[in-house]
Amino acid sequence: MSRPHPLHSITAEEITKASTLLKAILRERHGPDFKFRFKNVSIQEPPKTLLLPYLDAEAAGVDTRYRPFVPRCADIVWTSSNERTLCQSTISLDSFTEVGRIQAAPGQHSSLDRDEMRKSARKILDDDIVKEAIKKLKLPESCVVQCDCWPYGADRDSTPETHKYIQGLLYARAPNGHPESNQYSFPLPFSPVLDIFEDKIVRLEPLASGGKGDGLKYYTSGEEPMAHCAENEYYPGLQSSKARDDVKPLHVEQPEGPSFTVTDTNCVSWQKWRIRVGFNYREGLTLHDIRYDGRPMFYRLSISEMTVPYGDPRSPFHRKQAFDLGDAGAGSTANNLALGCDCLGTIKYFGGWLNNEDGEPVEAGNVICLHEQDGGIGWKHTNHRTQGVAITRARNLIFQSILTVGNYEYIFAWIFWQNGNIEMETRATGILSTSLIDPGKTSEWGNVVSPGVLAANHQHLFSLRVDPMLDGHNNSLIQEESISVPQSEDENPHGNAWRVVKTPFAKSGFADASPFTNRCFKIVNESVRNPVSGNPVGFKLVPQPCQLLLAGQNSVVRKRARFAEHHMWVTRYRDGDLWAGGRWTNQSLQETDGVADYASRDEDVRDQDIVIWHTFGMTHNPRVEDFPVMPVEVSTISLKPADFFTANPALDVPQSTQAVNKSTLVVQSHPAVSHKPSPSSTGCCHARL
Amino acid sequence: MSRPHPLHSITAEEITKASTLLKAILRERHGPDFKFRFKNVSIQEPPKTLLLPYLDAEAAGVDTRYRPFVPRCADIVWTSSNERTLCQSTISLDSFTEVGRIQAAPGQHSSLDRDEMRKSARKILDDDIVKEAIKKLKLPESCVVQCDCWPYGADRDSTPETHKYIQGLLYARAPNGHPESNQYSFPLPFSPVLDIFEDKIVRLEPLASGGKGDGLKYYTSGEEPMAHCAENEYYPGLQSSKARDDVKPLHVEQPEGPSFTVTDTNCVSWQKWRIRVGFNYREGLTLHDIRYDGRPMFYRLSISEMTVPYGDPRSPFHRKQAFDLGDAGAGSTANNLALGCDCLGTIKYFGGWLNNEDGEPVEAGNVICLHEQDGGIGWKHTNHRTQGVAITRARNLIFQSILTVGNYEYIFAWIFWQNGNIEMETRATGILSTSLIDPGKTSEWGNVVSPGVLAANHQHLFSLRVDPMLDGHNNSLIQEESISVPQSEDENPHGNAWRVVKTPFAKSGFADASPFTNRCFKIVNESVRNPVSGNPVGFKLVPQPCQLLLAGQNSVVRKRARFAEHHMWVTRYRDGDLWAGGRWTNQSLQETDGVADYASRDEDVRDQDIVIWHTFGMTHNPRVEDFPVMPVEVSTISLKPADFFTANPALDVPQSTQAVNKSTLVVQSHPAVSHKPSPSSTGCCHARL
Repeated sequence: MSRPHPLHSITAEEITKASTLLKAILRERHGPDFKFRFKNVSIQEPPKTLLLPYLDAEAAGVDTRYRPFVPRCADIVWTSSNERTLCQSTISLDSFTEVGRIQAAPGQHSSLDRDEMRKSARKILDDDIVKEAIKKLKLPESCVVQCDCWPYGADRDSTPETHKYIQGLLYARAPNGHPESNQYSFPLPFSPVLDIFEDKIVRLEPLASGGKGDGLKYYTSGEEPMAHCAENEYYPGLQSSKARDDVKPLHVEQPEGPSFTVTDTNCVSWQKWRIRVGFNYREGLTLHDIRYDGRPMFYRLSISEMTVPYGDPRSPFHRKQAFDLGDAGAGSTANNLALGCDCLGTIKYFGGWLNNEDGEPVEAGNVICLHEQDGGIGWKHTNHRTQGVAITRARNLIFQSILTVGNYEYIFAWIFWQNGNIEMETRATGILSTSLIDPGKTSEWGNVVSPGVLAANHQHLFSLRVDPMLDGHNNSLIQEESISVPQSEDENPHGNAWRVVKTPFAKSGFADASPFTNRCFKIVNESVRNPVSGNPVGFKLVPQPCQLLLAGQNSVVRKRARFAEHHMWVTRYRDGDLWAGGRWTNQSLQETDGVADYASRDEDVRDQDIVIWHTFGMTHNPRVEDFPVMPVEVSTISLKPADFFTANPALDVPQSTQAVNKSTLVVQSHPAVSHKPSPSSTGCCHARL
Repeated sequence: MSRPHPLHSITAEEITKASTLLKAILRERHGPDFKFRFKNVSIQEPPKTLLLPYLDAEAAGVDTRYRPFVPRCADIVWTSSNERTLCQSTISLDSFTEVGRIQAAPGQHSSLDRDEMRKSARKILDDDIVKEAIKKLKLPESCVVQCDCWPYGADRDSTPETHKYIQGLLYARAPNGHPESNQYSFPLPFSPVLDIFEDKIVRLEPLASGGKGDGLKYYTSGEEPMAHCAENEYYPGLQSSKARDDVKPLHVEQPEGPSFTVTDTNCVSWQKWRIRVGFNYREGLTLHDIRYDGRPMFYRLSISEMTVPYGDPRSPFHRKQAFDLGDAGAGSTANNLALGCDCLGTIKYFGGWLNNEDGEPVEAGNVICLHEQDGGIGWKHTNHRTQGVAITRARNLIFQSILTVGNYEYIFAWIFWQNGNIEMETRATGILSTSLIDPGKTSEWGNVVSPGVLAANHQHLFSLRVDPMLDGHNNSLIQEESISVPQSEDENPHGNAWRVVKTPFAKSGFADASPFTNRCFKIVNESVRNPVSGNPVGFKLVPQPCQLLLAGQNSVVRKRARFAEHHMWVTRYRDGDLWAGGRWTNQSLQETDGVADYASRDEDVRDQDIVIWHTFGMTHNPRVEDFPVMPVEVSTISLKPADFFTANPALDVPQSTQAVNKSTLVVQSHPAVSHKPSPSSTGCCHARL
């Protein structure tokens, strides 16, 4: 195989090559019996100073042979001594050497990997003390107990000496249950803690199952504490009611194929856009080198991190705070997407490669899907004088990836519009994290969503990372607000005027959403002016004014997720500044080397190579409707051109016509259908003049 | 024809019947030469006390013959003496009598109707003084000047004695231009004012064309003041660049027809939902008697009003403030929707009836379209132990209607989800309202979007009216916020907890959005408890935290649109309380009998028949990309069940499978396609067990 494009994700061969080298190095240094585990093997993206000239040469049509050399390195995260030692090695895939190694500090713990979680769950369930405790619950014989391995989290008692732990959350399948039975309807009232360093169960923590007025330390004393729990299934065929039978098939057909083309394995061209698709274990889907009509737009777009703190103060629930990217990995947990199930229409899939604990490549098939969708009306105007109609339908291009992090699912989609908009859509779905609540009780800390089942209030806070290169890599960030002009005879005699107040960021820092002043943030290139308006060319981001971290000012929850204290951050670009919550999030005591640290460098950001970070998400106080599986909760962030173009970029989209669109008319109330349009419904398809 | 359903919009026969009666009455009283005009003839919706028992009987399956009698009345708005006198008559269609008449107060003016606008435009353009003024602009001979008739608006100089005026905004088609040439690229620098009462042009107002620093009263003194304007076309075939040719066809096919049925001409049944579709000249599309699985949910949903104030303080621009429903009518301006152009897929159309100035029926064909869409993934969970996947696709039902109000378009869509959500989506599109700006200048009050063309900053503020009947017509409104619990050993030792604080409304009134406290509003029925959670059954509305009116506290702009001073209003239901900005908005001096007045009655609203009003929208500071036609700006408000159901209502949606969905795999980079799924992409379609 020829050398992959610098933005190609790691290949199976490269994983083998890099891990073989590291194995040899470690065994040579520490002896043949040295025990170590591979956590993650991925590509270390090249320094921007080396990559950008390559991408510019590529965009200019320079043949591969004449583009600058860009080194290719693997990034290996590995551990030894039961995860006690945690290292990151950089392996040159060109010179076949270890060119760098960083050892994590005490208290920085590795993420939870699949092999580790599988083994830990088995260890917990095989433990005699755990078995004994389960027995006391007097579950029906046929109940199978299962264990979800949760990150242990941190609190004020955690120190850099705290071992790496796993918090086992135990659930039972329904009596006589099926392997797909919804365990979250039967939450057990205690939680084993596994010490990973010592490789043993260190304690069983009782889980509070009280309600309002029961305080922090009420534990059930019932003989059969789970007897009031009831089967509540989501899996097809197990549900108590039959599937509805009145959803008629709906097909999306593209008889001439899709409007996109994929070249060089990961380069997508579509409707003047050109985008490189990336994939890694941590962020999952990433997008690179986004250009429109040849103009550079975005160097890199990604979801950088998320934090999911829970609002139940009763120990150990107070430690529930997942960082699903840093603690688990959006790539490591990415679904293998299925044709016709996850994706409707004409679909292209992209795969990637992960690794097991031995450093062997593991295929991650179909982790990204790509397809087009009809986006409704794109623009329309009817000339009321002539009844002449100009109308287009919007066509969108969608990159989608889905994560399963234990109980919960996230669907991430990047949506490209012909009008220059780029949207990041998240859909939260899956199953709520639950705990037992005694019969008849309700709680201040969550909602009862099934008999005996409390779903705790929690937040989902995501960090969107935007690395722009609008007409060049030196850009600025400007805050814009619409502010009323005071009424005065000189300037605003009738009181109807407002002014758009623009405040550029001079230094790296943060800002918050302010919807009531119509605050938006414009990324601009101050050296390139729009010839029509005279404004610098730019893109606009209206921050979602979500509720930020609810955890108290001095809480560890907050210290661990400084990125979620503000809606917007702007930082000066540095290679490797990729993770809003810091590199090592698992059991972190504070956010280290996260976006708050990047921003605190107090660097110049005006007309510089900058990165924008947007914190968005939601406070999720569960509804009964969110169980036994949650309908998608959709949230969308948009990047929109703002004086980047000299006109509506979707102006040249061809008119919407029945000749192309072939819609069908319902001529009767009942499903008799006809392809003939009614006489009065052919309006815009005729030339009127 | 048998008696129409009480919620059927007015029929052609009824229009003829009602206007014939009114003509006879007026001629009898005022003599055969009495001149009057019909503005609008519509159905006056029956009192709720009469209609609700009918609807309940209908829902219970009672045959039409045995349902209670509900009177059917026409509502006629008519004027005489050049719109000097404005009346609303109620005509019983049962007893064939005028049963009520209200005469508007001095200063309350009628809306602008189509016939009136057509005549007024002609009058303005035929006026010698106007012709002379146009001549002085030295436009090329071939330029055709056209006139948009704008509501005159109001300001502090307006009084109840102010006549009804039309503000003519003049534009030219491009030289040698086509009838579809984009006039908004050539705005003329003066504006004729037509006095409707006197039926004459009363003055030409010069329009400021200065830029920053030029003050309020700079008028061009150039010889050819529009010479720097340039053709900027949106119409297909007129655009300077060719249409793109790489958008491949995309068809939506439903081989078994749609999943909805329509009975009784306007009753839609779909996926457990039942909805009555209404249409009237003022609100356009309305929805009634919405039930789910037989349970009453919403009595009526509508867009009640919108206001579009502009932020340019230079006279007469300061008076630009459209109320597109009250001044023109969402039904009166509704587009005749075209198969395959406005709507993709399997489409059902609904029509309605409007009238001309003689009271004759005018067909409003295809003003509403109804179809299904794939809504992406509806819910998903992957069992990480078994890799068993449960996944559904969401199917949505969409009622769509499109308004053309002069230069601008609004696309309104009500979107129903299988999961119980109801969304109101607005898409703003069409052409910006423009004025001339001198060469090389830029403005504080808008953006230059084409040579010589200033698009002023403006706001769009909509009022969504929600009349609930959740499990009965006595409902309450509760404000909910998520508030951090102070850190304390007793209650919140680690600082991670928050509490959901609920505040019910006792009296009619208002509230504002507060996204940073996660404020949402729940409409609940306190007499019906969710058996799982114990909470009252309810629906949730998260208000869009849009910027509210920017106009000053003492401005007439603000006095006219009190509804847009707050995000949320709750009022006690009264028949006829339908219009957030009051019945007569055209040239109104203040909002009279609008939602602020309804709310100020200080009525009990807890466990009462209540109505909720939500103000949403945007401040629109135009981008260059919004010209010559604006890409849709999408804004969505959701009503979501919150403990209304005992589980996810979309739980029983059948699993998403390739057997039904028939997606297509892109097997090559290039458009070669195949129907065969790849081996690793069949995941969820197999029974795994």
